Amino acid sequence: MQRKDPYHEHFSLFIKHLKGYQKTLARRKPKELYEACHYILELGGKRLRPVLALAACDVFGKHPDKALGAAMAVELFHNFSLIHDDILDNAPLRRGKPTVHEKWNTGLAILSGDVMLVEAQMAFNEYPPALAKNLATLFNKTAVEVCEGQQMDMNFETSTGVSVKEYLKMIGLKTAVLIGCSLQMGAMCAGAGIHNQKAIYVFGKNLGIAFQLMDDYLDVFGESHTFGKKTGGDILAAKKTFMLLKAMERLDSRGKKELKALITSRISDSEKISGVVRLYRQAGADILCLKEAEKHTRLAIKNLESIKAPAGKKEIMKQFALNLLQRAK
Amino acid sequence: MQRKDPYHEHFSLFIKHLKGYQKTLARRKPKELYEACHYILELGGKRLRPVLALAACDVFGKHPDKALGAAMAVELFHNFSLIHDDILDNAPLRRGKPTVHEKWNTGLAILSGDVMLVEAQMAFNEYPPALAKNLATLFNKTAVEVCEGQQMDMNFETSTGVSVKEYLKMIGLKTAVLIGCSLQMGAMCAGAGIHNQKAIYVFGKNLGIAFQLMDDYLDVFGESHTFGKKTGGDILAAKKTFMLLKAMERLDSRGKKELKALITSRISDSEKISGVVRLYRQAGADILCLKEAEKHTRLAIKNLESIKAPAGKKEIMKQFALNLLQRAK
Repeated sequence: MQRKDPYHEHFSLFIKHLKGYQKTLARRKPKELYEACHYILELGGKRLRPVLALAACDVFGKHPDKALGAAMAVELFHNFSLIHDDILDNAPLRRGKPTVHEKWNTGLAILSGDVMLVEAQMAFNEYPPALAKNLATLFNKTAVEVCEGQQMDMNFETSTGVSVKEYLKMIGLKTAVLIGCSLQMGAMCAGAGIHNQKAIYVFGKNLGIAFQLMDDYLDVFGESHTFGKKTGGDILAAKKTFMLLKAMERLDSRGKKELKALITSRISDSEKISGVVRLYRQAGADILCLKEAEKHTRLAIKNLESIKAPAGKKEIMKQFALNLLQRAK
Repeated sequence: MQRKDPYHEHFSLFIKHLKGYQKTLARRKPKELYEACHYILELGGKRLRPVLALAACDVFGKHPDKALGAAMAVELFHNFSLIHDDILDNAPLRRGKPTVHEKWNTGLAILSGDVMLVEAQMAFNEYPPALAKNLATLFNKTAVEVCEGQQMDMNFETSTGVSVKEYLKMIGLKTAVLIGCSLQMGAMCAGAGIHNQKAIYVFGKNLGIAFQLMDDYLDVFGESHTFGKKTGGDILAAKKTFMLLKAMERLDSRGKKELKALITSRISDSEKISGVVRLYRQAGADILCLKEAEKHTRLAIKNLESIKAPAGKKEIMKQFALNLLQRAK
C-alpha cells in the first residue's frame, strides 16, 4: 500500500480489526491449527478485498466500520484459498516465506484452510438476520464460483486447445468475482439499493478481470523493480495466459509450431523469454491484452459512474482502481 | 438401514431430496469438480445425521420436510469431512470404493471438499432470515469444533502420553457435536424452544460419544459378521482408542511396557490381537469402555426424557438410539 493511497484509513481500520482477531486466534486450541491461520494472516499484503469492502460502505455514506464483518469474511476466505491453492500448485513460498503445507504439512494446511472457510462465515454473525442472510447468500455464491475457477485453472494445466474465451471465464471466476463480492458486501452493509449494489459488483468484477490481464501483461513487459517480481515467470512456467492463448489463436501454423516448441524447449531462460516475446509481438497478443484490459477497465468505470453516490467519493474509487491497474508506474 | 428402522420414512424422504440435488450436480461445470461431489454422496451409508435432523423436527410436531435444508447441510458437511479426512489419513478406500483423492487426485479432492463445505452453507438459504441465521450460527460453531477434533486426532498419532480425558474431548469434537447439531437444527426448524433445543443437542452429543466408544469396543470384541468389518483393525493400526489409553493408564509398569512392545511388534496379526486383548482384560479396559459408553447413554436418555414432546415420539427416538448403539446385535 502506498502512502498516498486514498484508502489508507480504511486499510488501518481493517488492520486494527484483524489484529484483534489474531489475538483471539493465539488463545485457541489445538494450537497447531490456529498457529497456521495466524501465520497466513500475518504474511501481509495489500488487503485489497477488505479495503474495497470498507471503501464501498463509505461510498454509500456509512462509516466503513459497518463493513468490518464483511471485510473479515472476504479476507479469511481469500487466505483460505491461498492455503489450499498453494497445496494444489505445490508452491514452496508465499511472499518469500514458506507456505503453510511446507512449514507444517499438507494435512494441517487442508484443515487450517477448512477452519478459515468456516470462520469466514461466522464473520456474518454480527449483522442483523436479514443482512446476514443477504451477505451469506452473495458470499457463498461467490465462494462456489472461486472453487469453479480454481478447478478450471487446474484443468487448463493439462488440456490442449484452451480458448481465450475460456481463459477470460476462468479469471472471472477465480479472481474477479471476489472483488465484485467484496464491493457489493460493503454496499449491502451501507444499505445501498439493489441497482447500486449490482453496479458496484460489476465495477469490481471488471476491475478484477482488467487487473488479472494487466498482471499477465506486466509479468512479461513490466519493469521488474516496479512490478515487484522478475519478468517472464509465466513464460518459464508455460502458464496459459491471455497472451499465450491469443498468440496460439492468431499465429499461422508455422508460428504456432514455433511457439509450442519454444514454450517446452530446454534453452536458456533469457532465450526462451525473448523468443516468446517476439512471437507475442508478431501475433499482436501484447497489444490485444492491453486492449482487453482497457475494455474491462472502461466497463468498470462506466458501472462505477452509474452509481448514485457523491461524485467525490466515486472519483476517489476511480483513481484507486486506475492506480491499482498501473501498479507503481 | 434395517427394514424395521422406525425412521425409514425419514430416510426415504431425505434420499428423495438428495436425488434431486444430485441431478442438479450432474448439470454443473466444471464437471470434474461436481462429479467428485456426486460420487461421494452416492457411496451411500445410513445417512444418520440428516435422518436425525428430520426425526428431531418430527419430535417437535412439525413435518420432517421442514428440516430438509438443515439435513442437506449436515450431510454435505459430513461428506466434505470424509473427502478431506481421507486425504489426511491417506485412505485408499471408503465403503469399498476408491476415495476421491485416489480416484482423481489430491487437488481435486481438496477443491471438491471445499465446494461441498460452501454448498452446505447454501442449504440454509431456503429458510427465513432469523431461522437461517440461527441454523448457520450453530452449524458453523459445530464445523469449527469438528476441524479442531480432527486436528487433535492428527496430533494424537505422533504424541505420547495422550490421556483418556483428551481422547474423550477429541471424540466429542470430531464425532459427537455434529450428531448434537443435526438434532438441534431439526428442533430449530420445528420452532422448538431453547430448553428443548439444548436438551436434544446434549442427547445427541452423548449419543455420539457413546456411539464412538461402542465402535472402539466392537472393533475389538464385536462379531465381525454383525459389526460389518474385521475385528482388531484398531489394534493393528496402533490407534489410540479409549481401551488402549485406559490400559496404558491402569497397567503397572511391566504391563505398560508389554503393551507398548506388542502394539509396535511385528508378530502375526492374530498373536498381536490376542496379546493386546489379554492386556485390555487384565487392565479392565474392556469393562471400563462399556461403562463409559453406558454413562453417556444414560446421560443421553436423561436429556431426551427431559424434552417436552409426546412420549411416543421420544420413545421411538430412544429405541432408535439404543438400536444404533447395539448395531445388529
